[in-house]
Amino acid sequence: MTATLRLALGLIGLLFAHAALAADDPLPSWNDGAAKQAIIGFVQRVTDKNGPDYVPPPERIAVFDNDGTLWGEQPVYFQLLFAIDRVKALAPQHPEWADKQPFKAALEGDMQALGASGKQGLAELVMASHAGNTPEEFQAIVTDWLAMAKHPRFKRPYTELVYQPMLELLSFLRAKGFKTFIVSGGGIEFVRAWSEQVYGIPPEQVVGSSIKTKYEVRDGKPAVIRLPEMNFIDDKAGKPVGINQHIGRRPIAAFGNSDGDYEMLEWSTAGEGARLGVIVHHTDGAREYAYDRDSHIGRLEKGLDQAGDKGWVVVDMKDDWNRVFPFEQ
Amino acid sequence: MTATLRLALGLIGLLFAHAALAADDPLPSWNDGAAKQAIIGFVQRVTDKNGPDYVPPPERIAVFDNDGTLWGEQPVYFQLLFAIDRVKALAPQHPEWADKQPFKAALEGDMQALGASGKQGLAELVMASHAGNTPEEFQAIVTDWLAMAKHPRFKRPYTELVYQPMLELLSFLRAKGFKTFIVSGGGIEFVRAWSEQVYGIPPEQVVGSSIKTKYEVRDGKPAVIRLPEMNFIDDKAGKPVGINQHIGRRPIAAFGNSDGDYEMLEWSTAGEGARLGVIVHHTDGAREYAYDRDSHIGRLEKGLDQAGDKGWVVVDMKDDWNRVFPFEQ
Repeated sequence: MTATLRLALGLIGLLFAHAALAADDPLPSWNDGAAKQAIIGFVQRVTDKNGPDYVPPPERIAVFDNDGTLWGEQPVYFQLLFAIDRVKALAPQHPEWADKQPFKAALEGDMQALGASGKQGLAELVMASHAGNTPEEFQAIVTDWLAMAKHPRFKRPYTELVYQPMLELLSFLRAKGFKTFIVSGGGIEFVRAWSEQVYGIPPEQVVGSSIKTKYEVRDGKPAVIRLPEMNFIDDKAGKPVGINQHIGRRPIAAFGNSDGDYEMLEWSTAGEGARLGVIVHHTDGAREYAYDRDSHIGRLEKGLDQAGDKGWVVVDMKDDWNRVFPFEQ
Repeated sequence: MTATLRLALGLIGLLFAHAALAADDPLPSWNDGAAKQAIIGFVQRVTDKNGPDYVPPPERIAVFDNDGTLWGEQPVYFQLLFAIDRVKALAPQHPEWADKQPFKAALEGDMQALGASGKQGLAELVMASHAGNTPEEFQAIVTDWLAMAKHPRFKRPYTELVYQPMLELLSFLRAKGFKTFIVSGGGIEFVRAWSEQVYGIPPEQVVGSSIKTKYEVRDGKPAVIRLPEMNFIDDKAGKPVGINQHIGRRPIAAFGNSDGDYEMLEWSTAGEGARLGVIVHHTDGAREYAYDRDSHIGRLEKGLDQAGDKGWVVVDMKDDWNRVFPFEQ
């Protein structure tokens, strides 16, 4: 064999090795960098049976915030747009809403007045527009809305505005024996309507805010009925409470994007052994949105200030992701 | 080959075929009969891809009551005995309990006075004796108690008083792609302390009654703290509500033993497609206990009266089970 031939074969070998590596990359939409390395390194450590950080599969619990972490949340939470459309659809049965806030603002599309009604106003809107049906009926309404509604900027269904790098991360973790859960400040039944299809996360692995329900037999048909009364707010200090109630085990990995996720990350990463806390930082105004400390939605201040001390990974959407949405080429 | 040899070989063949069948029996502790046939028939129908009753694996949700369905509940709920022992252990820090019901009755072992304090009294007892710690601490207390406490009649740890036929059923259903959940009137954290080890059911698949919790950072350590305040009663009409909250999907199979499970069975079996409702009827005073309509624990009246109309399978413990506990030969 000549030296040239050897060199050529060597180069071909390198090319194939590189191609094989790329094909094996479980996170192709993540640029090589500190964030990707930290995530992959953590997964390697907790799945290495002979290593000191090994975690048995049943304890590999990973929790994900939804709004701003798995799908978008700007210009406003998508569920709020759903609630406004529901109020419009239900308005003929509620003539009193024409003069009553926050319903008046919703009917007039007055987002400023809606914002001014505060959290209490928004809760009222959601409760009034989401109740009076069974979970199955409610989820059918959500499914119908998602099939019709389009995002004001991207002109696409909201279920397409999920982050491709996070979809890859969910699959990667599941392939490594993790059980993936959503822990959302949004409504549990709203998310359940599409989480299995979009994220591969079944209803029993969704934790979220909820309204009360009651069981009754209506016209001989047994049913769970949704009531216009708040049951649980799964946000901030509510997230560890909701996780404990639903999952009963402290997660070893937590993913969020706002200060609403602070306590979830704090509790998850304070456990013993290897832990992973990740904050998605929205830094990409061109491909998505850029916001943090001053945003009215998904405000991120405490998390940014303390990520270093806490050892949390801050994902820079602009630098760390080579692709944001699945529909991008 | 002589006729005798042929006959001998034929008999040997039959013997092996029978041995193979017995070895393949997924429910060896169940006697052949209507109950076993109904259960196996249901599982065959919903797993037959080409049949009209096929159910995809994610929708194969099976729910099990715990007390009296998976483990014993006589002479009183085992968790009540735990609560009494906790009250005794905590009494030095609560001198006021000496003169206050239901604590006085618990300290004096006066089961009649305890019973007279009613559901409210028992709830008070449980709340006071189960709170003030983290879920991890509480579960460690439960584990320690289970390692020490013995059943008054069987003189064995309570975790050995689980029903062998039901253990086989749990394994069989899981092997057929079902996800098995506990839906207990008992405390969710009490059951979670041992459900994975004893039943192979992880904490996130346990639904139960609960006290409230709050998240706080104590001495720099983030923790969920259990509060002496009732959060949710997972019994009767609470069971469909708890199932909907935790699982978010109507089960296709439900297993219970008392009228506390009536609504769970009613809701589960009223769904579309093939459904299975099973009631364990305690008919075996020799090997376990015999009780139904008049029992103060696990009362079964409505379920017995309506099982026929509803198409529910009533398991006759005495006739349908050839073995009750795993420790039996």
